[in-house]
Amino acid sequence: MYLRGRTVALIVVVAVLFSSLTTAAVAGDGGLLSQVTGSSFLSGSSVSSEDTRGLEENLDKLKQAYGLIQSQYIGDVDDKKLIDGAIRGMVESLDDPYSAYMDEKTAKQFHSSLDSSFQGIGAEVTMKEGRVTIVSPFKGSPAEKAGLRPEDQIIKVNDTSLEGMTLSEAVSKIKGPKGTKAKLKVLRPGIHEMMDITVVRDEIPIETVRSEMMEGKIGKIEITQFSTDTAEDFADELKALEEKGMKGLVIDVRGNPGGLLPAVLEIAEKLVPNEQTIMMTEDKSGKRVKYQSKLEGKKDYPMVVLTDKGSASASEILAGALKESGYSTVGQTTFGKGTVQTAKDFEDGSNIKLTMAKWLTPEGNWIHKKGIKPDVKVEMPDYYKATPPQPDKPLKRDMSNQQVRNLQLVLEGLGYKPDRTDGYFSKKTETAVKAFQKTHKLSVTGEVDEKTALKLQDEFVSLLRDPESDLQLRVGIETLKKEIK
Amino acid sequence: MYLRGRTVALIVVVAVLFSSLTTAAVAGDGGLLSQVTGSSFLSGSSVSSEDTRGLEENLDKLKQAYGLIQSQYIGDVDDKKLIDGAIRGMVESLDDPYSAYMDEKTAKQFHSSLDSSFQGIGAEVTMKEGRVTIVSPFKGSPAEKAGLRPEDQIIKVNDTSLEGMTLSEAVSKIKGPKGTKAKLKVLRPGIHEMMDITVVRDEIPIETVRSEMMEGKIGKIEITQFSTDTAEDFADELKALEEKGMKGLVIDVRGNPGGLLPAVLEIAEKLVPNEQTIMMTEDKSGKRVKYQSKLEGKKDYPMVVLTDKGSASASEILAGALKESGYSTVGQTTFGKGTVQTAKDFEDGSNIKLTMAKWLTPEGNWIHKKGIKPDVKVEMPDYYKATPPQPDKPLKRDMSNQQVRNLQLVLEGLGYKPDRTDGYFSKKTETAVKAFQKTHKLSVTGEVDEKTALKLQDEFVSLLRDPESDLQLRVGIETLKKEIK
Repeated sequence: MYLRGRTVALIVVVAVLFSSLTTAAVAGDGGLLSQVTGSSFLSGSSVSSEDTRGLEENLDKLKQAYGLIQSQYIGDVDDKKLIDGAIRGMVESLDDPYSAYMDEKTAKQFHSSLDSSFQGIGAEVTMKEGRVTIVSPFKGSPAEKAGLRPEDQIIKVNDTSLEGMTLSEAVSKIKGPKGTKAKLKVLRPGIHEMMDITVVRDEIPIETVRSEMMEGKIGKIEITQFSTDTAEDFADELKALEEKGMKGLVIDVRGNPGGLLPAVLEIAEKLVPNEQTIMMTEDKSGKRVKYQSKLEGKKDYPMVVLTDKGSASASEILAGALKESGYSTVGQTTFGKGTVQTAKDFEDGSNIKLTMAKWLTPEGNWIHKKGIKPDVKVEMPDYYKATPPQPDKPLKRDMSNQQVRNLQLVLEGLGYKPDRTDGYFSKKTETAVKAFQKTHKLSVTGEVDEKTALKLQDEFVSLLRDPESDLQLRVGIETLKKEIK
Repeated sequence: MYLRGRTVALIVVVAVLFSSLTTAAVAGDGGLLSQVTGSSFLSGSSVSSEDTRGLEENLDKLKQAYGLIQSQYIGDVDDKKLIDGAIRGMVESLDDPYSAYMDEKTAKQFHSSLDSSFQGIGAEVTMKEGRVTIVSPFKGSPAEKAGLRPEDQIIKVNDTSLEGMTLSEAVSKIKGPKGTKAKLKVLRPGIHEMMDITVVRDEIPIETVRSEMMEGKIGKIEITQFSTDTAEDFADELKALEEKGMKGLVIDVRGNPGGLLPAVLEIAEKLVPNEQTIMMTEDKSGKRVKYQSKLEGKKDYPMVVLTDKGSASASEILAGALKESGYSTVGQTTFGKGTVQTAKDFEDGSNIKLTMAKWLTPEGNWIHKKGIKPDVKVEMPDYYKATPPQPDKPLKRDMSNQQVRNLQLVLEGLGYKPDRTDGYFSKKTETAVKAFQKTHKLSVTGEVDEKTALKLQDEFVSLLRDPESDLQLRVGIETLKKEIK
């Protein structure tokens, strides 16, 4: 278990309040960080009459609509719900996926979730084109075991459609007590058929920093999220690796959706050389604030940063800062989120989160919707997109469906070569299944029953987690080795 | 061409303003009808201070949110857009798919569309679970020719996702000048793969009433929509059939999404016997208003009503009234829409449409979300769900994909028997293709190229439109014949 009590609660903050893809400033010194804090309260005096003039001018129309609904609409109408609707509607009119309003009830659910531990499927999600989309499943989580992948779109949970829900509402449907099932309808890009994936919820074990000394004294530090403890943990792990004589460092922010701005700044200020700029924020008025590194010289070992399309926000701040100070990035173009959100609470406990700044790389690039291109581009093989089959009835010769296609992709990944991956269960597919069954001491039937399907799933998850099959990591290490020589 | 200048413009009103599934009261005498008219204006004096008290009490919070957005949000903020957003948000908080707000721009586009003729794909659409869903394609329309079917969900139009759009916004994307193409991404229930369907837009020919004297002096009147001319046209057609000595009448409201309340009342008051009740409305306060038939005796011929799941709203009023006065309904359970909407314009040209009443059948049943069960249940055969294949490259032996599945369903419908319908192009599928090609004097290749695909499409559309293959109509006629004897 990677679980640490405090981290878990904080991850919930990041995942729910800041919608997983948010670089949120919650504390700190100077500039934007001191103005905007997650717990600041809004009151009438917070806004000037200049700011609300537009509302006063249009108040009559708003009143007409409100009054018409109250007096004529056939159903029950609740004052608070209408006002919540109005505020939500204003925020939605901004057409910014990172700005959101959380009503009292949703915010309350969120606060109570801080007291309990985090139980759910273990995946970072975001809203993309109105769909709840997986950024990345946590390593070792039920979501990963069940085969969910980045970019998967969750359409339904236990027959409840997520269409039209806010991210927070959707997350509350996906989460649930340990041991319960989340039956998901999932759309995966490139695969047109809707998939059924059942995830058994669990206590979600999360640590945000993991390190390892690999062969050749090459260190690896993986950051899965930027939460409150992350910078401190990173400092500890970095120090430990340095004391062991590390000759090169791989920093892995693949699938890292971001988190707290102060956390990434505190990490970057120990890595970016010569007190150079880490990033800049730019507010509505165009005012820029620069954040500088605190490292006087330069680390005496080379570094590379591994990125993928799931690396967002704070991960991009780190990758951008290191790239523009001369280090290489390896993998795929990052997500492309160049904005900073801050959250404000209303007195009644509801909460509004707004995009209040852009952030720019040290050279002044705004990577929003563009991402950071890797210096060394490495795609993952096709079978990384596959899901192990979860057939209702055994898959066999001459069938033709999506489950067979999953089977074929997984067999291909595991090195058993079916002749095709279009979902038709051919003779050669049968031969591949038989070979798999023989290797794993299962009855050699050539049919994929539950037992064979479970074994395929286990083997496939092991494959995905095997460093040897991690092509991006391997290329990252090769890149470092050239610089060590 | 069924086109009649005036009807076309009115259909646009029905399709856009009333979202296709709306029984909207726009004119009439007495009760609800006189209170609510589509063109009534809202002004400050329309609403009482009692109705807006909740707004006053919560105004401070609304101001805080408004002011925060105006002063802090990074992007451009437009006063009117925020207010529109607030009103839209209030209407959406009702969680009623039939209530909607149309901002000035959307309403303006709509009004200008009244001047031009109606050019588009020719399908009634509604919002279902957040998705733009086909209620029914118009007969002979490009939508029908391209193979769109009731319950199809349109996900994208020319690569623009419709997710998160209002129905009006979505309709404006689907519509377009004659001759242009709408490339649709479509999800069909029961078929998990997303389909590509290209529809060439055209002038949409619509008449809302069509009649025919069939064999055995059985008359058929089909009502495709309840618009302003519908009642008058119906009366003309009915009179003509009666003068020809009609012995029984089939009223076909399959795929009829509804329309104007006065239109259906005017039709029903000529059919429902003995001045019985046609329907009742019930407003927020529980006040009921009854609408009575004007027919003193009873028609001297039997009637049946054909319904399907696309029969909604005004169609259900007609079916319910006739069913509860002793006539039979044949087909499938209807859509289930038991509410009445009315639209009010703001002075700036924007528009709010609200559900202001329920309607009940003569016996007081509220059919909302239940529909009206047919006395004689008749499902249509499976192949009615199929779409003719539109392959990018020729379909041939040993392929396995959705296009092959479409091919197999269509071949089955046309009476050429493939051995399977799971999308695998088997030897017997090839044999069926060859038989089709031979019959239609195409090169007998066993492969489905563009030429063969087009011929399949033509034949399939003919099949669907052939009265002989219309099982529900046939059962309707049989039901009538028993009563004529």
